[in-house]
Amino acid sequence: MTLGPGYTPRQLQIDAARLNNTLHETCKWGCAHRWGDRPTETGMCRLALSDDDRKVRDWFVGETTRLGCSVTVDTMGNLFAIRAGKQGGAPTAMGSHLDTQPTGGRYDGILGVMSAVEALRTIHCAGYETEYPIAVVNWTNEEGARFSKSLHGSDVWSGGYTLKDAHALEDVARPGVTAASELERIGYDGGTPCSHWNNPLAAHFEVHIEQGPVLEAHRERIGVVQGGQAYKWFKIRIQGRDSHAGTTPFDYRADPMQAAARFLLMTHDVARSHNGLATTGIFRLEPGSVNTIPNHVEFTLDIRHVDDAVLSAMEAEMRARGEGLLQTDSRHQCTMTWEFLQDNSATHFNADCKAAVKEAALASVSPAEVREMVSGAGHDSCATSRTVPTAMIFVPCAGGVSHNPSEYATPEDCALGAQVLLDAALLYDSRRTR
Amino acid sequence: MTLGPGYTPRQLQIDAARLNNTLHETCKWGCAHRWGDRPTETGMCRLALSDDDRKVRDWFVGETTRLGCSVTVDTMGNLFAIRAGKQGGAPTAMGSHLDTQPTGGRYDGILGVMSAVEALRTIHCAGYETEYPIAVVNWTNEEGARFSKSLHGSDVWSGGYTLKDAHALEDVARPGVTAASELERIGYDGGTPCSHWNNPLAAHFEVHIEQGPVLEAHRERIGVVQGGQAYKWFKIRIQGRDSHAGTTPFDYRADPMQAAARFLLMTHDVARSHNGLATTGIFRLEPGSVNTIPNHVEFTLDIRHVDDAVLSAMEAEMRARGEGLLQTDSRHQCTMTWEFLQDNSATHFNADCKAAVKEAALASVSPAEVREMVSGAGHDSCATSRTVPTAMIFVPCAGGVSHNPSEYATPEDCALGAQVLLDAALLYDSRRTR
Repeated sequence: MTLGPGYTPRQLQIDAARLNNTLHETCKWGCAHRWGDRPTETGMCRLALSDDDRKVRDWFVGETTRLGCSVTVDTMGNLFAIRAGKQGGAPTAMGSHLDTQPTGGRYDGILGVMSAVEALRTIHCAGYETEYPIAVVNWTNEEGARFSKSLHGSDVWSGGYTLKDAHALEDVARPGVTAASELERIGYDGGTPCSHWNNPLAAHFEVHIEQGPVLEAHRERIGVVQGGQAYKWFKIRIQGRDSHAGTTPFDYRADPMQAAARFLLMTHDVARSHNGLATTGIFRLEPGSVNTIPNHVEFTLDIRHVDDAVLSAMEAEMRARGEGLLQTDSRHQCTMTWEFLQDNSATHFNADCKAAVKEAALASVSPAEVREMVSGAGHDSCATSRTVPTAMIFVPCAGGVSHNPSEYATPEDCALGAQVLLDAALLYDSRRTR
Repeated sequence: MTLGPGYTPRQLQIDAARLNNTLHETCKWGCAHRWGDRPTETGMCRLALSDDDRKVRDWFVGETTRLGCSVTVDTMGNLFAIRAGKQGGAPTAMGSHLDTQPTGGRYDGILGVMSAVEALRTIHCAGYETEYPIAVVNWTNEEGARFSKSLHGSDVWSGGYTLKDAHALEDVARPGVTAASELERIGYDGGTPCSHWNNPLAAHFEVHIEQGPVLEAHRERIGVVQGGQAYKWFKIRIQGRDSHAGTTPFDYRADPMQAAARFLLMTHDVARSHNGLATTGIFRLEPGSVNTIPNHVEFTLDIRHVDDAVLSAMEAEMRARGEGLLQTDSRHQCTMTWEFLQDNSATHFNADCKAAVKEAALASVSPAEVREMVSGAGHDSCATSRTVPTAMIFVPCAGGVSHNPSEYATPEDCALGAQVLLDAALLYDSRRTR
């Protein structure tokens, strides 16, 4: 290995056992939902700004301080552990989140922060001097589980959501308890403005479990994430006419259940033909009696595509074809309305950051084990990418399972992810010019 | 009109205004759910064996006694108002039910009893002597709304359900309150065994609103009911695998919602190809999140056909074709289970009774206004037809709407139904030989 100017991937090497130990050790705060006999065979319930979240934050501050960092806390409780470099400037950051779903696992978000801490530890123990500052970031309430706004902290920081709105959000289970009051209660209402203007980063790298089945199915080990899909959410209502299942011939029915069945198959046809996705995860009907044709059904539609324009075309085609499906098997017709719930445009990660991740990946595994892929889920990196160069690293998770206590990634894959994170961040650090 | 031996249709004529007045007057007991400004523009909530049911029963006993009947109350609270004929023997009966759905209308069942009372009144006022006894019957809890067994009284009488089970049924809203305790409480726990053996009838005629749209749509006025459809109820469960809507490509999904959509369209195809019916009136899924592919859906399937064998063939075809639909758009497959809820074989009404109804109908309206048809819903006559010659008369109802406060039949159609009931019963009486 040539040690020339700049950094060479694997020049520093993370300690796989130390990473694994730290990850599981810190899961004692919020440990829940045991599913197996071994000590680590539990899930997690570490809701944002809870007492357990405070405890792991306290550990984070102590550990990163011990590793030579100064820790900044912003007004959203985002934590920035910054280690100085040879010169000043905005830090090259490695970040993710320590909060979990109420029935979450030990990897989603946690792996990203623990890998970043392990990378920091590796740099510190090797006495390696970075060109610019390096930061490890813990973003507040990425999950949006306790306060109903996902990417809560990172979205305020990057300008996508106002601090006022973010502070006012209430605990979904305890009205009156707000994000602001909980930040104050646990002592993480920091003085630094939550803004990329006031507290900038130079880049953001994040390692995360894939939360899908693709890497595992292809026996691949690293995903070089190109960006995030665009997605839109709708609530769709189809109105028919309730009537008796025995006395109403097909020709006299306006059956919204049949119209919905046709509609759902059509959404898959349209999505498939555009190489996109469509999902219906909520479905209700009324009045709900075995021998009564429903008068009303309502359901959600989640559509996704990597390209904003194609996603809009998918939506338009579904709306147009949906109208043609309302006259089911009858002379009567149902009616349909679409309610808009969410619209998220596609995320495109930074070319230099992606190149650093890919180079780092190929230093550790063969090209056949590396996949360039798009994230199906939202991540803090989708927020940061609006304002700073960003890229992500995916590692496989068992069965593609996530948001579930049994979520699992092997220690080897976790270590590989952390190594690629370290290498990508130091490659970027060694090459950035300001 | 020749007055020869026997009875000639329209020899006696019912009083349309008197029928209409009696029907609405007695709806003061249980009147509910106002939908219009006029006094009669309400629905009904007259649950079986409630205080309102007791009041209308008291009226029924008083009125039929006044019209020369002796009233028998059996152990299910079924009321038999019997008027003697020239000779003894089992009575020719006209019957239906006075109980309603909780959000029911003024015609379902009520029209049948009030038409029978009006027919009795017409016979009585004319001093007409029937050959055999004539009975007006009020069957207990036809709706099965308060105690969850439809055709509750008539099914015990005809041997399809045990008295013990029938007495033990609890009020759906008040556990511990049983049919037996309510019969006792309202004073209608009669001493006559509830059985066609101990308390026989010679025939049973019933007039009822169609509860479907066919007569109205064809501008027809009388349905000569040939029998009841066979029907089966199932609960079907499809198990897939929950996964993230954004991170799970179609090829990796086992989406029970898509499998169910295909299944529901298939059930209509199969039913239509056999000239039968299929309905899904209840549908649930889990876990129910916009961006999560469900792991489980369950829904009911109600299938119907006039022929038991064809219904079984429909079921077999749906089961076979259903298995082929479980692999949706993926290499993965859902699994499906069928739970049996109910099986009701087809009802075939008696040829002599149907002939009497048809002859009676054609005496009042033109052949183009008479339809031979099958009942889609269950009625007390479906129970009685197992043991005694039975037929039914349908009259149109507005929009086919029933089990709804706005259920409506015109006074003219109600009167016509009562006239056909009277004529059919007297034709049958004049021709029966024992």
